[in-house]
Amino acid sequence: MYSPTLSELKTLPHGALVLDEGGVLRDVLPHAPAGADAEVHDYGDALVMPSFVDMHLHAPQYPMLGMGMDLPLMDWLNTYTFRTEARFADADYARRTYRRLARELITGGTTRVCMFSSLHTDATLILMEELERAGVTGYVGKVNMDRNSGDALRETTEQSKRETLRWLDACADFRHIRPILTPRFTPSCTDDLMAWLGALAEERGLYVQSHLSENGGEIALVKELHPDCSQYWETYAKYGLWKDHTVMAHCVHSDAREREALRRHNVVVAHCAGSNINICSGVAPVRTMLDEGVWVTLGSDIAGGAQLAMNRVITMSIRASKILHMKTDGETAFLTVNEAYYLGSTAGHRYFGADGGFAVGQPLHAIVVDDSVFAEPVRPLDLRERFERSIYLMDPGAICAVWSDGRQVVGGAPVVPGKGDGNNN
Amino acid sequence: MYSPTLSELKTLPHGALVLDEGGVLRDVLPHAPAGADAEVHDYGDALVMPSFVDMHLHAPQYPMLGMGMDLPLMDWLNTYTFRTEARFADADYARRTYRRLARELITGGTTRVCMFSSLHTDATLILMEELERAGVTGYVGKVNMDRNSGDALRETTEQSKRETLRWLDACADFRHIRPILTPRFTPSCTDDLMAWLGALAEERGLYVQSHLSENGGEIALVKELHPDCSQYWETYAKYGLWKDHTVMAHCVHSDAREREALRRHNVVVAHCAGSNINICSGVAPVRTMLDEGVWVTLGSDIAGGAQLAMNRVITMSIRASKILHMKTDGETAFLTVNEAYYLGSTAGHRYFGADGGFAVGQPLHAIVVDDSVFAEPVRPLDLRERFERSIYLMDPGAICAVWSDGRQVVGGAPVVPGKGDGNNN
Repeated sequence: MYSPTLSELKTLPHGALVLDEGGVLRDVLPHAPAGADAEVHDYGDALVMPSFVDMHLHAPQYPMLGMGMDLPLMDWLNTYTFRTEARFADADYARRTYRRLARELITGGTTRVCMFSSLHTDATLILMEELERAGVTGYVGKVNMDRNSGDALRETTEQSKRETLRWLDACADFRHIRPILTPRFTPSCTDDLMAWLGALAEERGLYVQSHLSENGGEIALVKELHPDCSQYWETYAKYGLWKDHTVMAHCVHSDAREREALRRHNVVVAHCAGSNINICSGVAPVRTMLDEGVWVTLGSDIAGGAQLAMNRVITMSIRASKILHMKTDGETAFLTVNEAYYLGSTAGHRYFGADGGFAVGQPLHAIVVDDSVFAEPVRPLDLRERFERSIYLMDPGAICAVWSDGRQVVGGAPVVPGKGDGNNN
Repeated sequence: MYSPTLSELKTLPHGALVLDEGGVLRDVLPHAPAGADAEVHDYGDALVMPSFVDMHLHAPQYPMLGMGMDLPLMDWLNTYTFRTEARFADADYARRTYRRLARELITGGTTRVCMFSSLHTDATLILMEELERAGVTGYVGKVNMDRNSGDALRETTEQSKRETLRWLDACADFRHIRPILTPRFTPSCTDDLMAWLGALAEERGLYVQSHLSENGGEIALVKELHPDCSQYWETYAKYGLWKDHTVMAHCVHSDAREREALRRHNVVVAHCAGSNINICSGVAPVRTMLDEGVWVTLGSDIAGGAQLAMNRVITMSIRASKILHMKTDGETAFLTVNEAYYLGSTAGHRYFGADGGFAVGQPLHAIVVDDSVFAEPVRPLDLRERFERSIYLMDPGAICAVWSDGRQVVGGAPVVPGKGDGNNN
């Protein structure tokens, strides 16, 4: 099953995915082809669907998952977050922690990420290594932050530039993980640094990720820092950071004009419903954005979000949309389970050039869910029901295999030799 | 650690609980007593805290967990719920399903429940047996519903009365599970049946559970059915069902007058935050209820709720309260993690006569959480932080032991012979 568009869920009972030897998807068929000369992975009655994409999370906040949730944003940042991230100056600690994070991501079915590291170059490279090792693919950014970051976590403008270049040089070694420029957010970066990053993005053809309009206090601070900009997004635009494929987390308080700027420039929204509620930022107007043609994806935003598992991020997005549905007396439609899954899967894969669900011509990214581990239903369920239940109840135990970038990286399945095996005809 | 009142979290690092041979808690000590002549369960550095209490859930909806979440309440009831419950006419199916439910409850740390069964007497007795077998204690009710229940699930008024008496007779055999009268809700019960149940409650000294003010359409229907009652709660009151220890699920739309009736009669609110958002019922004004002195507890409300684990019910209650916090521009304080835990633990145990956290003089109900399974923190955490993280991240894998009604029913711990063991001095 897969979700080619926001409104569709396509199902192919006992269908087949045909891969070439490099793991690139060549065909999606309603039945396994007869007499094919190929290795067959037979997952029986399990559900096979495109994997999850986490478009916003902070790797160095993983150790503080589920803590400090009662604090307001600025206290949370200053007493918890910056101090936690500072710990990643220690390479051994980074190695242990990132290995665990990568493993938890991949066993949870998240095969593509767009991720913040800390400002530490070495820890960022360790993070990239550990993601590659586990089979997680995508973009990772060394964070740039040369102001307003407290004592524990500080880099000068010169250090920030120098370390960014050192990091980019070292990134050439990675095959499945690529670098993305990551100014933390406008309050954390001097104009000098922002301008330098914008020029670098242009020069090297790099994507950019940051935060936008999460919280009222933050928006007021940005206004103070950039009196010449009438809106938050313009502080990125004036330095060349607001462009096609730029990822902006949150956008909770983006008004019609800011949303139009998102749409016009093909900037990607990473909606982080759980985090926005935990930190009392608000509920982003996702339905409105979708109606307007804005590109919306989902992010766990750990550790503002307290849940790394993307199926829970998806169901939390549904709940957040129901809050807005109720607030508008039903006028704003909530996200159906299929729509929210589309945002947490297809819309994210599109960032990597793979559109339409199972993307033919692209390496396979898929999860296999054994929904027989759930309670015995009262009657045989149809595929739509099995899909919904899996999204709501899926825990790592229910994910029996994960394919990432054309390789099976978690679990196994009986490999049935193809007809041609053994006699090489 | 334990939560004796809404605002307190008491911690006793390496403290000790002293039980008598019947599992009744005799003392809570800051240190294990030296030289005690007793068996010692040493849980090392794990967290020991009072177990969870689920004050509202529908056992026969367990098979539909995580399904039908995109449907409005009345469609959800008629196309999913009633048909699912009807399946429990099959005793074998009930046995398999309830065994699994009971196991999932107890391994998740829920040791006390106030639970709806279906209208089936035999399946209700099977449910009670399976709960006892697993170590879950509390109240279970055979549902009464003699109108507006569709074709699949129907009993006449006479059947409902006769079966209720047959069920009550059979309940004498249970030790840890007791019966509670359970008119489904006002729209499901004729006046005749309601009056009979009220008289029976009085005659036999039985508690009552039902639903109240969940949804606008439901409230309008109740008004139509009982034009003499100005508010929903009065439809219970007029038949003697509104009394001390009556449990009312939801109370989303209870206004000041209805809340005052809750408080005055010591009626217990079972707040079901996740369910209320899933089904778009609203967000109950829990802070206001607490400020007014209403007795609030928590319920998973499966399968309107999609999560059986009470730690997730607790964190969802926090998120729901943050929605109201934001809606009132911060005027209504959200539930802190300790407050929400108090509601999901101490406030529920109080229903069973055990107040104040670890209740001395009562059989022990506790969970032991091995939080070393979570990610390595950046520095040693204090107990308050370990508590918060455990509430947010706890999965059954982190619960290494469960005590229910004075017996260890899940897991184990090295039993260290007391000093007196072996020489019987």
